[in-house]
Amino acid sequence: MAVTLAELARRFQGRVRGNPDLAIKRAASLDSAGPDDIAYLSDRKFLAKLASTAAGAVILAEPDAAHRAGSVLIVENPHLCFARVAQLLHPAPAFRPGAHASAVISPSARVAASAWVGPHVVVEDGAEIKDDAYIGPGCLVGARAAVGARSRLVGHVVIGDRCSVGEDCLLHPGVVIGSDGFGFAKDGEQWQKVPQLGHVILGHGVEVGANTTIDRGALDDTLIGSGVKLDNQIQIAHNVHIGDNTAIAAFVGIAGSTRIGKRCTIGGQAGITGHLEIVDDVHITAGSLVTTSIRQAGAYSSSLKAEPAEKWRRNAARLHHLDEMSQRLKVLEEKWQQHSEEHDN
Amino acid sequence: MAVTLAELARRFQGRVRGNPDLAIKRAASLDSAGPDDIAYLSDRKFLAKLASTAAGAVILAEPDAAHRAGSVLIVENPHLCFARVAQLLHPAPAFRPGAHASAVISPSARVAASAWVGPHVVVEDGAEIKDDAYIGPGCLVGARAAVGARSRLVGHVVIGDRCSVGEDCLLHPGVVIGSDGFGFAKDGEQWQKVPQLGHVILGHGVEVGANTTIDRGALDDTLIGSGVKLDNQIQIAHNVHIGDNTAIAAFVGIAGSTRIGKRCTIGGQAGITGHLEIVDDVHITAGSLVTTSIRQAGAYSSSLKAEPAEKWRRNAARLHHLDEMSQRLKVLEEKWQQHSEEHDN
Amino acid sequence: MAVTLAELARRFQGRVRGNPDLAIKRAASLDSAGPDDIAYLSDRKFLAKLASTAAGAVILAEPDAAHRAGSVLIVENPHLCFARVAQLLHPAPAFRPGAHASAVISPSARVAASAWVGPHVVVEDGAEIKDDAYIGPGCLVGARAAVGARSRLVGHVVIGDRCSVGEDCLLHPGVVIGSDGFGFAKDGEQWQKVPQLGHVILGHGVEVGANTTIDRGALDDTLIGSGVKLDNQIQIAHNVHIGDNTAIAAFVGIAGSTRIGKRCTIGGQAGITGHLEIVDDVHITAGSLVTTSIRQAGAYSSSLKAEPAEKWRRNAARLHHLDEMSQRLKVLEEKWQQHSEEHDN
Repeated sequence: MAVTLAELARRFQGRVRGNPDLAIKRAASLDSAGPDDIAYLSDRKFLAKLASTAAGAVILAEPDAAHRAGSVLIVENPHLCFARVAQLLHPAPAFRPGAHASAVISPSARVAASAWVGPHVVVEDGAEIKDDAYIGPGCLVGARAAVGARSRLVGHVVIGDRCSVGEDCLLHPGVVIGSDGFGFAKDGEQWQKVPQLGHVILGHGVEVGANTTIDRGALDDTLIGSGVKLDNQIQIAHNVHIGDNTAIAAFVGIAGSTRIGKRCTIGGQAGITGHLEIVDDVHITAGSLVTTSIRQAGAYSSSLKAEPAEKWRRNAARLHHLDEMSQRLKVLEEKWQQHSEEHDN
Repeated sequence: MAVTLAELARRFQGRVRGNPDLAIKRAASLDSAGPDDIAYLSDRKFLAKLASTAAGAVILAEPDAAHRAGSVLIVENPHLCFARVAQLLHPAPAFRPGAHASAVISPSARVAASAWVGPHVVVEDGAEIKDDAYIGPGCLVGARAAVGARSRLVGHVVIGDRCSVGEDCLLHPGVVIGSDGFGFAKDGEQWQKVPQLGHVILGHGVEVGANTTIDRGALDDTLIGSGVKLDNQIQIAHNVHIGDNTAIAAFVGIAGSTRIGKRCTIGGQAGITGHLEIVDDVHITAGSLVTTSIRQAGAYSSSLKAEPAEKWRRNAARLHHLDEMSQRLKVLEEKWQQHSEEHDN
Repeated sequence: MAVTLAELARRFQGRVRGNPDLAIKRAASLDSAGPDDIAYLSDRKFLAKLASTAAGAVILAEPDAAHRAGSVLIVENPHLCFARVAQLLHPAPAFRPGAHASAVISPSARVAASAWVGPHVVVEDGAEIKDDAYIGPGCLVGARAAVGARSRLVGHVVIGDRCSVGEDCLLHPGVVIGSDGFGFAKDGEQWQKVPQLGHVILGHGVEVGANTTIDRGALDDTLIGSGVKLDNQIQIAHNVHIGDNTAIAAFVGIAGSTRIGKRCTIGGQAGITGHLEIVDDVHITAGSLVTTSIRQAGAYSSSLKAEPAEKWRRNAARLHHLDEMSQRLKVLEEKWQQHSEEHDN
């Protein structure tokens, strides 16, 4: 597939400087691009690469265009434009509709004629696979579960019973949707399981990274809003709600019944304990632990940054005596105060 | 399935107030329950919902019963009673014994006549699947591994060679039991693998959450006690022992050869380093890092709580100078001490 | 398989004290070893076990040999020697070449005659499985992906399209190589996906633990050096490079485009943010968060150690006022300074 620079400019509200007839075949980085490729400037610290890149064209913001001699596609937001150009040039692989002979599909499942069910897939009773959905190798779609139109399960994805995936979703290998929530009642020394009877409902345009797990609700449902982007190896517990267009990085854990607002971002390895309310537009830094509700938009943190271990060890050791240190400071302040008063008198 | 309120009271040592003949069909939340459903009060902060719920009946402790006009099942421990009622009304799905045509079962494996082996399952040489066990779609039961009576592997579970799962266990998708422990010997600049020759042995009534991994022992075995409950995405390293009825939340990592006692609870994202001994009845808060043995029951923590990032940044920056700050405090104290002595003289 | 102690000494540059003709059949721990087994002393704190072990032979360093009466294999580095002896006595299970009838192999895939493709495996178009490679049950080898000679995919491993695994690698169940990187461009309130077009390239002798995920590069490639050892449940983001012989423990997350040097070690649950450079021979302690490049070899940390929760709570509470506390200390110092100057005058 090749698209001229002029056509890209027309589609994505840009302006060509240079050769509008240049046929662009691939999106690439400044480092690896060749004469058929289009690249973009991801960070102004790489401005010098504009002189050395072999890219046929580069997507740039107006102020940076002067740094390049060759063809340029000038747009307002180069990163966003590059994303769209790359989507156009590199669509998800096409597939033929149908089902592989090795797929095991319940007679009571409804699979759209335009969908694909891959090898070694299992589709259980009453499940529904909608138009143009792609169910890759080795997936399991549980009883009465649903996969929406144009959604893509890359392979080795598990959708539990009665859970549903919206339209235009992308689920990577190892994703588990609808495992049981972690719910037990104390019974003397033992734990009695509280059956997990809710479902997981994913909105539209959700992406779920490899090996991420989302538990079904205990009684009601776990809800993931439309446009939510989840990185790899995230854990979302039962009854969590996540608002539209929130993006969450790897290893984030969200405990039961917590509500996260819209347009939030949560950095890697952050944790959020259960039964909290986090409003819209909250940003949590990597490695932070949120233990109380957040009622005001903004950035929150409890991250510590690594330093040379020997230095850190001394600082951390003091932290374990900080309460005592604070009391010693208070004593000194009081003595000073008393001393001052005596001398003022 | 429907059970009268009177029958529930009889089975679970409760007392009915209201209509004993009410037929209960489902367990539900106060918010979503209808006239055929039974709910319970999970937290007294929701007392007001007792007036508004459409639930046919509610499980309550004696002191709360006055807050509801309709039918009530009065018990000592509503949460535990609700768990048992829900177990009764919502048993695990029934299955027919046998094996799906697509399952690949070694001729030397022993599969009980009452067990089910699902589609695309692989059961290797000498493995044993015991009475009424359920092996869901896409599982792998390795050579000479064993799955105990009534245990349920939901689907996509891997049981490594010679590992064994006890009776009445529940393993969720993506669980890996018996991957190699992380054992290497330094060989100049390289690492030589130490073959991992032990097994993993799970007791009875163990639940293992989605994508949790438990490594086989290096030479001896990794042991998970009966009644242990493991959430999703936990990592348990080689030769770890976990005592009966310990419950562990998501993302907890336990390093090699550490022993955890009975009835412990470990909060999400906590880490425990290797070769430690943690006694019975220890509770570790979410996000804590345990680096020394714990010889006394109780709660332990090193968690930090997120606050507005700008404020946190200032506090954290000071932490990186805490040792210096402590020394400055000491200097002041000494000066004061000297000053006082001089003035006392 | 049995090997005499004399033969082990010859192969691994050791010296026998005791019976050179002793036939050794297994590697075992001091605790569990019997008369046909060889053990080693993993830590000098277990010296007393040398008197009680039933092991036929023990691998010891010269200074420890006097603590044992029975047969001894004396070597310079007992741990390394034990690793090699165990490798010799316990090789990976042999397999017959070929493919299971249930495997789905594209006609355009190239599978070496000496390789094994297990049950329910899928090998897609143009993929290549090289000499003596073992593809265990339920693996997926994507289109144009490659698995190098003698590499072993234990089972349930996913190798994404066009990714490649070097020679002599070992990949455990649940590993996902080549999931999409987490790349999106902000588009008003929504996120536009940036197609992830790069690959993952694993060097030779790489081990990857269960449920570890490695994302494909956005435009260029994610590179894992030879001899790298990755524990379970690690997440490596797009475009990361990891140098040869670096070893990484469970739950470590490495964000996009970060470069890690050679021979580094990274403790469990550590996090490394994106676009950093970490030089060779850097060691990061468990639970640390690295947010700036590290340009000097050595140990780095930001880990906190759990203490009794009540004590910790008081210390942590003070931390949230540390900036204020630091300012109060400064005020006192200044007052003192002023006071001293006044009294000196």
